Amino acid sequence: MNEVIILLDVTLLGTAALMPIPERALTAAVLACAGRSILFDCGEGTQTAARKAGVSLMSADLIALTHYHGDHTFGLPGLLQTLGVQGRTEPLAIAGPAGIQQELSPILQLAGGLPYPVTLVDIPPQGLALHTLHKAWPVEARLACYPTEHRVVSQCYAFTLSRPPAFLPERARALGVPVQCWKNLQHGQPVVFEGRAVQPEEVLGPPRRGLKFVFSGDTVACDGLKTAAQNADLLISEATYGENEQDQTAKEHGHMTFAHAARLASEANVKRLWLAHYSQMIENPEDYIENARQFFPDAVCGQDGMKITLKYDS
Amino acid sequence: MNEVIILLDVTLLGTAALMPIPERALTAAVLACAGRSILFDCGEGTQTAARKAGVSLMSADLIALTHYHGDHTFGLPGLLQTLGVQGRTEPLAIAGPAGIQQELSPILQLAGGLPYPVTLVDIPPQGLALHTLHKAWPVEARLACYPTEHRVVSQCYAFTLSRPPAFLPERARALGVPVQCWKNLQHGQPVVFEGRAVQPEEVLGPPRRGLKFVFSGDTVACDGLKTAAQNADLLISEATYGENEQDQTAKEHGHMTFAHAARLASEANVKRLWLAHYSQMIENPEDYIENARQFFPDAVCGQDGMKITLKYDS
Repeated sequence: MNEVIILLDVTLLGTAALMPIPERALTAAVLACAGRSILFDCGEGTQTAARKAGVSLMSADLIALTHYHGDHTFGLPGLLQTLGVQGRTEPLAIAGPAGIQQELSPILQLAGGLPYPVTLVDIPPQGLALHTLHKAWPVEARLACYPTEHRVVSQCYAFTLSRPPAFLPERARALGVPVQCWKNLQHGQPVVFEGRAVQPEEVLGPPRRGLKFVFSGDTVACDGLKTAAQNADLLISEATYGENEQDQTAKEHGHMTFAHAARLASEANVKRLWLAHYSQMIENPEDYIENARQFFPDAVCGQDGMKITLKYDS
Repeated sequence: MNEVIILLDVTLLGTAALMPIPERALTAAVLACAGRSILFDCGEGTQTAARKAGVSLMSADLIALTHYHGDHTFGLPGLLQTLGVQGRTEPLAIAGPAGIQQELSPILQLAGGLPYPVTLVDIPPQGLALHTLHKAWPVEARLACYPTEHRVVSQCYAFTLSRPPAFLPERARALGVPVQCWKNLQHGQPVVFEGRAVQPEEVLGPPRRGLKFVFSGDTVACDGLKTAAQNADLLISEATYGENEQDQTAKEHGHMTFAHAARLASEANVKRLWLAHYSQMIENPEDYIENARQFFPDAVCGQDGMKITLKYDS
C-alpha cells in the first residue's frame, strides 16, 4: 500500500514592484498541486507572464490577493476575460483582505459578463480547505492568511499540505486487520472486524512533516508574516529595496529591504527564500544579494519564470 | 527662409487581438510629433510594450480609444497610475466613441486619485486641433475620427499634418515686400506696406501634400475607415484573420481578413499599409501576407515595436 506522493509546483511569474518593466513582470506566483492551482496576486500582465512561464491559469480555483493596490490587481479584468474566452466554465474564487466586495467591484464591472461564476471568498481562521473549491485538491491542502503591515489592509498566505502518518502494514497484520479495512485506517477511520475495534493510531506511524509555501505581498517585516512563514519549505517574500541604508525608507513605505526579508526568513526557520517585488531602482537584484545572505545564507534572488517542485522529505 | 520640416514618428506597440501572448502585445500605436504624442488604444500591457519599444508615454497628450472592449482599454488603469508615479502633472485627454463617461468610469475609479487632470474629450466633426491640448503641437496637426463597424460602437482615427504652401521669396522680392513682412505672409496673413496690400496667395506656391496617419481599431471594411484612410501615408489596420476563407467569420465577428484590409487600403489609395490585430490562431502572420499582397502589393505584416518616420514628400 504505497503512499501517493503529492508534489507542489511553484512558479514565480514576476518580480517587479509598482510598475512592470520589460524584464520584470509585476510580482505574482502560481502554486500547482494535483492538477489544480492557486494564483497569488494579479498585476497587469500576469496573464502574459503565466504564458511566458508555460503555466496555464485555467486550472486556477482561487486567486489570492494580498492587497488591492493596482500593481497587484490590475491584471484581473484581462485574465478573467481571457479565461472565459478560453472556455472556462468552472467557478473561480477570489480571496483578499477586508473590503474585497467594494475593491473588486470596478474590476468585475470591467470584466463584464463571464461564462463562469466568480465568487468572493473569506478565508476562515483555520484556513480554507481547498478541496471545497475543487475535489481534485488533496483533502490535506489548506490555505490560510495572516495579516501583514502595509500602507493599506494586507495579508500574506500560507499554503500547507499536511502529510498523513505512514501506515504500518506490519502492525495491521499483527492485529489481524483484514486488508480490505486498511484503507479506512489509513484515512484515520477506526474499523471494527470480528467484534474488535482498531483505532488508526494503532497502525499509523508518528506525525510527518508536510509541505508549506508562503507568499508575502507588500509588507514590513511583521509578526503576521513571521508566523505564516514558520518552517515554510519556500517563502516568496517582497524585498523592495536592496540596500541596508534604505531601512527607514522601506519602513516608511510599508516595505522591506533584502536584509529585512532575510532576517525574517531566518527567524521563521524557512528552508528556502526567494526575494521578489524589486523597486525599479534595482537594476540587478544580484548586486544586493549579500545583504540578504548575511542573515539567510541561501537567499535567492527571484527571477521571472523561476520554478521549483517541492517534495516531502523522504 | 527655410521651412521647418516636421516629422511624424509612428511606433506599433503590439499586434495581438483579444489576449496578449508573449510574442505579441495587444494592438496599440503611438504617434509622436514635435515632442508630443498620441497613444491609440491601450490594452493590458501597453505600458510595458511602450517601454520595450523605447517610447515614453509621458509626452502623450491624448489617448484615443477606438472602442471599449477590454483588449483595447484594460491597460489604462496601470498606465494612468504609472504616469502619476513618474511625476506627470500635465493634463491628459482621453477620447473615444459615444458613452465614454460611463465606459471609463470603472477604469478611472481603479486608477484612483491621480496627480494630473484627466479630461474626457469629444472630437469635433472638423477634427481636434492638437495645439489646443499642448502648445508644442504644430497648429496644422489635427485628429479626426470616423465611425467604424464592429460589434459595439467604434471609430478609427486620422491624424493629419497639413503642410503650408511654399513661400516664394522671388515673388515677394518682385512685389517689393520688405523682408520683415515675409513671415506674416508665410503664415497666411496679408501685409500692408507703403500703402499697398499684399495677399499671401501672391507669394505662396500651390497647395502641398501634408502627412496623414490612420489607425483602425476593430472593424469590418467599411466606408468610415475608407474615408479616413484616403491618401494616408500610413494605415495601421486590423487584420484579424489570415485566410480568405475566413471572410464570413470575419464579417460575423466585426473584423477583417488580410485581404479585406488590403483591398480597402488599395481603394483608399494609401501609401503604406501595416497589418495588425492578429487572431491567436495566426502563428506567423507572414504565412498569409500574399492574401494581402494580391490587393496591396506592398502590404507589411506589422510587428511589435515596428517604427517609421514619416516625412513630407520633398
